[in-house]
Amino acid sequence: MRDESLRLHKEKQGAIEVVGTMPLRNSDDLALAYTPGVTGPCLEIARDKEKVYDYTIKGKTVAVITNGTAVLGLGNIGPEAGLPVIEGKALLLKRFANIDAIPICVDSTDPDKVVNTVKNISPGFGGIHLEDIKSPECFYIEDRLKKELNIPVYHDDQHGTAVAVLAGLYNALKIVGKNIARVKIVINGAGASGIATAKLLSLAGAKNIVLCDINGALVKDDSTLNKVQQKIAQVTNNKCEKGNLADIIKNADVFIGVSAGNVVTEQMIESMNKNAVVFALANPTPEISPDDAKAGGARIIATGRSDFPNQINNVLVFPGIFKGALEVRAKFINDEMKISAAKGLAGLVKDHELNENYIIPSVFDKGVCEAVAEAVKRIIREQAKHTQ
Amino acid sequence: MRDESLRLHKEKQGAIEVVGTMPLRNSDDLALAYTPGVTGPCLEIARDKEKVYDYTIKGKTVAVITNGTAVLGLGNIGPEAGLPVIEGKALLLKRFANIDAIPICVDSTDPDKVVNTVKNISPGFGGIHLEDIKSPECFYIEDRLKKELNIPVYHDDQHGTAVAVLAGLYNALKIVGKNIARVKIVINGAGASGIATAKLLSLAGAKNIVLCDINGALVKDDSTLNKVQQKIAQVTNNKCEKGNLADIIKNADVFIGVSAGNVVTEQMIESMNKNAVVFALANPTPEISPDDAKAGGARIIATGRSDFPNQINNVLVFPGIFKGALEVRAKFINDEMKISAAKGLAGLVKDHELNENYIIPSVFDKGVCEAVAEAVKRIIREQAKHTQ
Repeated sequence: MRDESLRLHKEKQGAIEVVGTMPLRNSDDLALAYTPGVTGPCLEIARDKEKVYDYTIKGKTVAVITNGTAVLGLGNIGPEAGLPVIEGKALLLKRFANIDAIPICVDSTDPDKVVNTVKNISPGFGGIHLEDIKSPECFYIEDRLKKELNIPVYHDDQHGTAVAVLAGLYNALKIVGKNIARVKIVINGAGASGIATAKLLSLAGAKNIVLCDINGALVKDDSTLNKVQQKIAQVTNNKCEKGNLADIIKNADVFIGVSAGNVVTEQMIESMNKNAVVFALANPTPEISPDDAKAGGARIIATGRSDFPNQINNVLVFPGIFKGALEVRAKFINDEMKISAAKGLAGLVKDHELNENYIIPSVFDKGVCEAVAEAVKRIIREQAKHTQ
Repeated sequence: MRDESLRLHKEKQGAIEVVGTMPLRNSDDLALAYTPGVTGPCLEIARDKEKVYDYTIKGKTVAVITNGTAVLGLGNIGPEAGLPVIEGKALLLKRFANIDAIPICVDSTDPDKVVNTVKNISPGFGGIHLEDIKSPECFYIEDRLKKELNIPVYHDDQHGTAVAVLAGLYNALKIVGKNIARVKIVINGAGASGIATAKLLSLAGAKNIVLCDINGALVKDDSTLNKVQQKIAQVTNNKCEKGNLADIIKNADVFIGVSAGNVVTEQMIESMNKNAVVFALANPTPEISPDDAKAGGARIIATGRSDFPNQINNVLVFPGIFKGALEVRAKFINDEMKISAAKGLAGLVKDHELNENYIIPSVFDKGVCEAVAEAVKRIIREQAKHTQ
């Protein structure tokens, strides 16, 4: 697999290419596409900046940005080494949403420099897709960019995971007949994905969420936590449960792993409530193998892998989010849009199809991107009505 | 023309699009192009940064950068309004050199911020093409980037014009039988193009160059000039000629206009030496119309327009320069490469074809890009041998 992927990337010189949209056969073509004809679009935009959406690539183009500080499970391997992943993201955005995405490696680990760089190159882009930026810096970078730019800014490691998990959870809870407001949810991993998932699940009505990391449950007023963890600890773990994952997972209804391979045992699954829902999303090795989770009594099991049922994958989410946002020239992506996207995604699995091995569509199912985009656009339209 | 160009840009949503190079039909494809297969290229690059050229788009990709401060003849119209031009440049780079070029609008007029932004996004690019940045800031920006990056940095408004002019001049002087070291050359326009042309012609052996602008001839120790103009004034106009263009053009052998329309009269051409060479390159209106220049006695006339003979156009230059540089992974583009490119370009017009109306190939002539690229690569190879 690794060798085959190396061969493919070398042969293709990366995952994307740029092609022209206009003919250039003769000087008439040149005069239209370039000078002197191009002064037309330039002057229209100079007169009214909003026209940049009409005459340029901006409205269909997203920058996929990384600084290489948290690349997949590989850690801080630098911007160059992060490039294959963001090229892949660009490939996926084209394939699933027909969006032109441009990979940009930012050569800085300083959050303010990343912010300023992205701001400075933003005029040509209709949206900013942040990727593989380490926690907690990713939160600061996204927050500032959201405040300071008027195009959608979206950090996929946070929101792609959160939305896909929420979609899967909606359907899983339907099967086990439990209510999101009453289940105990344990999230293992308190980085970008874990924290964003906790936030979104909480906004979606979950009232009993405990976040764990390698040091055990996050508890409020723990000064060893970073600021973002301290903040999420204020609004989760209301019972102030303390201890490691094995302690915390007892009597949980839902386990969501966004951490590392093989950190959950069959015995830990056995200690969960009946009809346990286990999302073991670490890649490529899940927190617990589906077989072991099953043996421990889990009723519904999802992973991040395509070779098991119920693949919870960001690819289900980000193409549709950006498609919806770009189509209506949204200025931002907010939590309501994300929850709506999760509902739209979950709704693709019809009640009569829903079962333990089918809680979420495949990334290759037709209509996924469209459903997510529609769900996002619905909220944008409603909010626009509201503010009129 | 303007309406037709507006229509084309709107219909196509800009001049370029991004497409995928890898199939994504099923989860096997996804696993190779994206996770988990993509960890292969990531890890190879993390181990050896130079491998980014093997497994990503970097080696075939150039950033085309503007901050919109000097867009065509339109002035400082801002980064958004500059986007159609750099999209056009990307279209041309693909068409003529098969280079993937990515337009980046930088939202700053502060030269240091432009430099830092470009540096910060440089890891994913094999070269930097600067465009439509006002003088004198463009010189500072290019100089710093050349010093601080180890990929080719090239400002087209300067060097594209300078190389194309030098190529045309080589052939024009052949026809009129004059020697570059002995002709008087007047360059009107002391911005990016004019100053870069003066520099390159001087390096190519021209010993009597006078630069003029709207205030007349540039003379050394004139404190009203900007720093870059003061510097070029030190090494041109050795006879300290003073006065306006009408004074200076007297007895000149060569006039090169990179200024504005209709600033040269028939009488001024009449005052030049016999067998005068007139490059009236202002666009879309030349400094003097070819008919008037002919009436004034000019023997060889070139313009920037495609509807007259002898079109001196940057498109003859930049695709080949970047093609040559990228193919050998050059770390920079230097003056020797530019002079070699000019010779390669001039050499495409064979002696038996050379005449007053054919001193430079058409941008659509086959072999232009290849000849320029070869000329650049020859220098890189020679210099590599030298430093071994």
